[in-house]
Amino acid sequence: MPDTTTTVPAPAAPDFANWSCPLPLRDHPRVVMGHGGGGAMSAELVEHVFAPAFGGPLLASLGDSAALTLGGARLAFSTDSFVVRPLFFPGGSIGDLAVNGTVNDLAMSGARPAYLSCAFILEEGVEMATVARVAQALGEAARRAGVEVVTGDTKVVEAGHGDGIYLNTAGIGLIPAGVDIRAQRAAPGDVVIVSGDIGVHGVAVMSVREGLEFGVRIESDCAALGGLVEAMLAVTPDLHVLRDPTRGGLGAALNEIAVAAGVGVLVQERSVPVPDEVANACAILGLDPMYVANEGKLVAFVPREHAGAVLAAMRAHPLGARAAVIGECVADHPGMVVARTGLGGTRVVDLPIGEQLPRIC
Amino acid sequence: MPDTTTTVPAPAAPDFANWSCPLPLRDHPRVVMGHGGGGAMSAELVEHVFAPAFGGPLLASLGDSAALTLGGARLAFSTDSFVVRPLFFPGGSIGDLAVNGTVNDLAMSGARPAYLSCAFILEEGVEMATVARVAQALGEAARRAGVEVVTGDTKVVEAGHGDGIYLNTAGIGLIPAGVDIRAQRAAPGDVVIVSGDIGVHGVAVMSVREGLEFGVRIESDCAALGGLVEAMLAVTPDLHVLRDPTRGGLGAALNEIAVAAGVGVLVQERSVPVPDEVANACAILGLDPMYVANEGKLVAFVPREHAGAVLAAMRAHPLGARAAVIGECVADHPGMVVARTGLGGTRVVDLPIGEQLPRIC
Repeated sequence: MPDTTTTVPAPAAPDFANWSCPLPLRDHPRVVMGHGGGGAMSAELVEHVFAPAFGGPLLASLGDSAALTLGGARLAFSTDSFVVRPLFFPGGSIGDLAVNGTVNDLAMSGARPAYLSCAFILEEGVEMATVARVAQALGEAARRAGVEVVTGDTKVVEAGHGDGIYLNTAGIGLIPAGVDIRAQRAAPGDVVIVSGDIGVHGVAVMSVREGLEFGVRIESDCAALGGLVEAMLAVTPDLHVLRDPTRGGLGAALNEIAVAAGVGVLVQERSVPVPDEVANACAILGLDPMYVANEGKLVAFVPREHAGAVLAAMRAHPLGARAAVIGECVADHPGMVVARTGLGGTRVVDLPIGEQLPRIC
Repeated sequence: MPDTTTTVPAPAAPDFANWSCPLPLRDHPRVVMGHGGGGAMSAELVEHVFAPAFGGPLLASLGDSAALTLGGARLAFSTDSFVVRPLFFPGGSIGDLAVNGTVNDLAMSGARPAYLSCAFILEEGVEMATVARVAQALGEAARRAGVEVVTGDTKVVEAGHGDGIYLNTAGIGLIPAGVDIRAQRAAPGDVVIVSGDIGVHGVAVMSVREGLEFGVRIESDCAALGGLVEAMLAVTPDLHVLRDPTRGGLGAALNEIAVAAGVGVLVQERSVPVPDEVANACAILGLDPMYVANEGKLVAFVPREHAGAVLAAMRAHPLGARAAVIGECVADHPGMVVARTGLGGTRVVDLPIGEQLPRIC
């Protein structure tokens, strides 16, 4: 009997030896620091390299965490690596960041953070006492945040191939019924509220790096925001957007929301709470506080009818005592963030390209 | 009215400046490569530094993944970082490892792997084409394994503070009802089955590192084992233990199980499938195949009454074609692994101290 099987040739493998990005990554054939800055270059890397390679509808939503359903449970799932330099800084450490960063990503979907994984990449030669001190800080931060570290991993790389300690955490949380918080839900009319002073973490880390000192001790705002979000959700489950403005600062967070929802954001610049110490340090360094990283702050888009009650609930919480309305969501200039300046003019708050401060978290 | 509040002093903070491990880490004041090797030194680091710092009953079980319940769903949750050198090796890449390593950790609890996170730590200067090639390999491995990458993160560190690309994945899977697979369930009488040839991944990586060549091309066995585990569970949900013997090899895996369950393991050395190429390369390098890493193999402890059917199901699966019974679980010598040699003698298969091959995954 003749063989009637049709041979289907396998699809040709992509020619990676001669690979070039289909859309030029601003003509960067090599990775530069800005690709880790949380701005336009980071977004390009995700959009042009990672998303096409990984595929999948969930990743395409590109939030800080993924919302998914497994075994009937609505879960949030998120990950972050931490490469901050130095490992200890005023007000915190890489251990605190590793917990609070991932816990906050989960909380920004309205989830109640529950479990963390923790993976160390240690550089040969790092002092065991330093490892223990970081682990202790991480454990204490987890207990404060009400999450449990349940699984982990340790790798060691040769001296000269790391920077003491790199950390990764991933986290899982449970999203309560009726909660649907994501950037795409920002809607004209929403009131934009920030939970307190901005720019503090970035300036605190910068103040101890490279020998910079600003005369005033500035401590990182690093904190877990799960409790604050719970207090807000107790007012109404119908919060539209929550975002913790870490790398790229408030400016990047507002831009991402404006683009994702196809709305405009109008910020009253005078209403944005910037402590004098941060403003002064930024003036010296030539930085804009709008783009400096925060690690214990959130920005919320709240339906106008709930805004007053949500603001009151935030101010009643220790981590929201200095919460303030900073602007509103508008139908004009979709995809753009515009600030009304103290003098009554307006300026565009762009998505930052690379980063102002590398290795801030 | 007098103040009758009793002031309870806060517990004294540990003196980390003068910290030393309560139980000496074999007198290592600094991290050495062996702490990442998956042997006794890795276990000491977890037991003496991480577990006390993190606390929690789930971490204390120290399996490759944590089993937990959230929103009524029984979940497995696991993480691994990947620092393999070189990034591409015969039969795979760091992208394949990052998927299969975490998928296999989930599968070893009987879970059906579902979702992955993926975090890159990139070194400034690495070629964008290399990043894309790794991302593509990772995406393809995820599709083969039937899991979806749903969330991620990218950090960049300065040139000289990394090694091209470090990867971390975390994963979530759903544990079917009635399945309870963990090291503690190993019981005397269980039949010990390995799914195929051991030592292949470690030798494949070694063959391309440092210019070593063995004349014969050995390809990594890197593969996702979720399908093989499903085929085994279709025979009986009552598998006692599954473990993928990665760092530290089959020797470390069997020792961990013996200690966790307080049982002895008796291995028939002649029955352990070691390909000639692996045996020869190990002889040249002075390595014991029992301690060389695998990335596409599992070892199973199966109740005797199901062993024949489970072995048959494994052999019917492409990834278990060379599955073999290699020994049994015994009540004698609890916590120890003993091998009966080809000559009829016996030897103790110790937990390796450090590692034979650094940065193997």
